[in-house]
Amino acid sequence: MKKNILISGAGLVGSLAAVLLAKRGHSVTVVERRPDMRTTSGYGGRSINLALSDRGWNALRKAGVDKIIEAIAIPMYGRRIHNHDGSSSYQPYGKEEQAIYSVSRKEINIALMNEAEKLPNVTFLFSHKTISFDLHTMLCEDVNGTQVTLKADMILGADGAFSAIREVMQKTDRFEYSQSYISQGYKELTIPAGTNGEFQIEKNVLHIWPRREFMMIALPNIDGSFTCTLFLDYEGDPSLKSLNTEEKITSFFQREFASAIPLMPTLVKDYMNNPTSSLVTVRCYPWVYNHTTALIGDAAHAIVPFFGQGMNAGFEDCVILMECLDEANEDIQSALDTYQQRRKPNADAIADMALTNFVEMRDKVADPKFLERKKIESLLHKRFPDKFVPQYSMVSFSSQIPYSVALQRGKLQDSYLDAIQQIPNVGQQLDTAEFWQEVNQILDTLQPFEYSI
Amino acid sequence: MKKNILISGAGLVGSLAAVLLAKRGHSVTVVERRPDMRTTSGYGGRSINLALSDRGWNALRKAGVDKIIEAIAIPMYGRRIHNHDGSSSYQPYGKEEQAIYSVSRKEINIALMNEAEKLPNVTFLFSHKTISFDLHTMLCEDVNGTQVTLKADMILGADGAFSAIREVMQKTDRFEYSQSYISQGYKELTIPAGTNGEFQIEKNVLHIWPRREFMMIALPNIDGSFTCTLFLDYEGDPSLKSLNTEEKITSFFQREFASAIPLMPTLVKDYMNNPTSSLVTVRCYPWVYNHTTALIGDAAHAIVPFFGQGMNAGFEDCVILMECLDEANEDIQSALDTYQQRRKPNADAIADMALTNFVEMRDKVADPKFLERKKIESLLHKRFPDKFVPQYSMVSFSSQIPYSVALQRGKLQDSYLDAIQQIPNVGQQLDTAEFWQEVNQILDTLQPFEYSI
Repeated sequence: MKKNILISGAGLVGSLAAVLLAKRGHSVTVVERRPDMRTTSGYGGRSINLALSDRGWNALRKAGVDKIIEAIAIPMYGRRIHNHDGSSSYQPYGKEEQAIYSVSRKEINIALMNEAEKLPNVTFLFSHKTISFDLHTMLCEDVNGTQVTLKADMILGADGAFSAIREVMQKTDRFEYSQSYISQGYKELTIPAGTNGEFQIEKNVLHIWPRREFMMIALPNIDGSFTCTLFLDYEGDPSLKSLNTEEKITSFFQREFASAIPLMPTLVKDYMNNPTSSLVTVRCYPWVYNHTTALIGDAAHAIVPFFGQGMNAGFEDCVILMECLDEANEDIQSALDTYQQRRKPNADAIADMALTNFVEMRDKVADPKFLERKKIESLLHKRFPDKFVPQYSMVSFSSQIPYSVALQRGKLQDSYLDAIQQIPNVGQQLDTAEFWQEVNQILDTLQPFEYSI
Repeated sequence: MKKNILISGAGLVGSLAAVLLAKRGHSVTVVERRPDMRTTSGYGGRSINLALSDRGWNALRKAGVDKIIEAIAIPMYGRRIHNHDGSSSYQPYGKEEQAIYSVSRKEINIALMNEAEKLPNVTFLFSHKTISFDLHTMLCEDVNGTQVTLKADMILGADGAFSAIREVMQKTDRFEYSQSYISQGYKELTIPAGTNGEFQIEKNVLHIWPRREFMMIALPNIDGSFTCTLFLDYEGDPSLKSLNTEEKITSFFQREFASAIPLMPTLVKDYMNNPTSSLVTVRCYPWVYNHTTALIGDAAHAIVPFFGQGMNAGFEDCVILMECLDEANEDIQSALDTYQQRRKPNADAIADMALTNFVEMRDKVADPKFLERKKIESLLHKRFPDKFVPQYSMVSFSSQIPYSVALQRGKLQDSYLDAIQQIPNVGQQLDTAEFWQEVNQILDTLQPFEYSI
């Protein structure tokens, strides 16, 4: 029953998969192109913090690292919307106790690596890149060009949006593949902690400065700082291209994000020095090759970050893969086949929802009609919990509801919300009996939902 | 003004581009992975014959090889539809004299290579594959592993659907790319010439055996034979997978293509021995890299063959590139930029129309309502030539109308055809004055078309 398993990539998903597979008794080797991040500085330009939600926690619990992460995770209970005029408003993400959690990418990765290395049957091979692979072997090369051939019963490509494993698969006949970029890129900036290490703005929320075509967000870090991310078009005006002098950067921020400027003393320097990153959606199929090799995480489905689900989806891949191994009694061919069939529609669904959520974050959250809709949605969830669960909650506060169900049910509920928002003066009568009588009639045809939160 | 130009790929588009560029006075080197097809047998599994239409002829005229090809091209004036019951019907492609032409891929390619080699400023480097390239150099390697570095002011990637040039470009940030396969593959079969070299079925048509989910077609060759192509699903029943014994193949053909079986004595052997090929659509952007390198033909936009436009579109790319060089006074950076902007929407349009036409060929052509529609369309074109040009004619019988215009105008006309087909008993009254009065009213809001054929 014990298998030799190779994992290409010691990132978040590769490290988690190593823990989960090793705990099943398999022998795991993780091959990572970069040096060990625990002994080197820097993190290769990837985003610094991430939003961890229910699907992620579920996976971390199974790997036994949830307690470690809880200590360094900051709950965000809602969005703080910063308007142009300096005013702000608050939108809860769900019920009072429900939150998504700001965590450091590096801290989670290190915790997972440490957990993996505690196990006797996990080996990490850092500074080795994957060159090629076939049915049961993988060829790797270190920085000096020394090559090593590793043997495996199963190979997992957990090597990210630009996966070397997938690159080989892309050349096989009838491999479906697309990589598509949105017109915006992003730049990370910072709001440092106050002089006594205090948070300079509200700690337990995700801050958004929505400006329709672009936006800035800020997530809290445990040291009291916030990581800000500016999402802005590459071309046009304003754009990452047009903001090319200190003066233009300063005047853009003064015009658009005046309330944030006093909090960002190193703004111009950060803007000039930090890299610009692009935002890709990768879709492909099949995820399985040779019956022994499978893609997982970003390698199978890189998505844009606007639903905060990239890491969560990758972690959930691992959970599903373990379920498939359970069901197949560790038969790899059968498990991988079930894994890809079960997971692909859900990967497509979260990719779509992530793209849609960008429009919500940068544009709709500032629209009074949208705020009214969110309020109604929340009331419906309270009054009709068996019929109405906000899509955001299905995605973020459940690890039972598949993404594809969240997408479909969300669309169905949206059509009912459309009808309810057409009741005359809906905003003024949310507490009247007449209104709820009408709502009851409208919801009559909506079948109860098979899941509850 | 004279430039050094490298072309990766000596296929149809690469060879034509070589002729056209050399005739402008540039020095051209064409690097081809395979050996010279003029001195070796076989043609690497690509489809044997192609349909040449107006856009292709226009390009061949400019290259000066149209007369050579005319001698070996067989006009096909319409479709001969072979029904299940052995009966057949005929659909003209356009007006009486309008035809598409069945030609041998290899013959055209050889004619273009010969024309290129007549020019003193063209060199072919066969059996050399493209390894890498940068701004002004390209690294190639022969079969013995000997490498050669070539210098260039411009590099054209004419190396097909699995372009080595594009593979390098795919790794650059923000490169849009997709490869997508339809669920059907194809197998080439043959109807040999009769004992005296005569055509065994009608010569000057494209034969179709439409069977809804699959189809067979046959195109005439100058030796009296026909090349048949069976398009069939990879999976399911019937499928390329399920037809896995002589018995199953025979019984499938007896059931579906009974009228063709007596003409195909080597059917089972051919079916068993010939490779199965897949059908890919490739879309990407940008087509230009480094300001010096551009994709052209299938490398930029591989499409499915159902509109018979793959070669024609690639040839038209060459014509447009020459126009752009004219306009830019041979400035390469400026010409390539105009080329990609002008050509990309048209490549997308023909890719879409080619996919749509598969449904027309395998399914709709056997539908009486569709035949009626085609008849009405043809009558409208005769009566209102300034308003109504069938989309098929815009694509196949014009080199003036951009593909994107053909797509849009076709959709617009379709909405009018829908309305006309809703006139009660339309089929019975195509020669009544009342009918044409109604048609006149319906067409009142359709603006004249800026192009005519």
